[in-house]
Amino acid sequence: EPFGDPQLGKIKAPSCVFCHGQTGIAVNPSYPNINGQNASYLFQSMKDYQNGDRKGPLAEMMKAQLSRLNDEDLKDIAAYFSSQK
Amino acid sequence: EPFGDPQLGKIKAPSCVFCHGQTGIAVNPSYPNINGQNASYLFQSMKDYQNGDRKGPLAEMMKAQLSRLNDEDLKDIAAYFSSQK
Repeated sequence: EPFGDPQLGKIKAPSCVFCHGQTGIAVNPSYPNINGQNASYLFQSMKDYQNGDRKGPLAEMMKAQLSRLNDEDLKDIAAYFSSQK
Repeated sequence: EPFGDPQLGKIKAPSCVFCHGQTGIAVNPSYPNINGQNASYLFQSMKDYQNGDRKGPLAEMMKAQLSRLNDEDLKDIAAYFSSQK
């Protein structure tokens, strides 16, 4: 079953692109490339940031970025970046 | 400057391949693909696992996998998977 809607994900991910790039190729080598990454892994990583299972300065920033997104939003965003080459 | 030695990384990463695959393409969609991932990001992720900045069952397993590796090992392993297509 489709994991999320990539078209919706692109709209819901305005702030991600500042670090992860328009199509998921990171603007800086200390951030991960997420183009073509597994959607369920991306979703779980974002959940880990939301629930504090990842610590550290970048983790705090990610938690803030994701604070207003629900699970469906996260699945759409995951589907978007996962679908990028 | 080269971040690590991919040839050495391949030898030092015998257990990684069981989940991340021979060349970094995960055997299961809930694990990340790490082929072509940014080496410094991979290194920092492994350090986060070592120092407990990542929580959860998979994080505990990763911490155990990485427990006997030093920073140079991690840089070599990061270089190996980062160099894979």
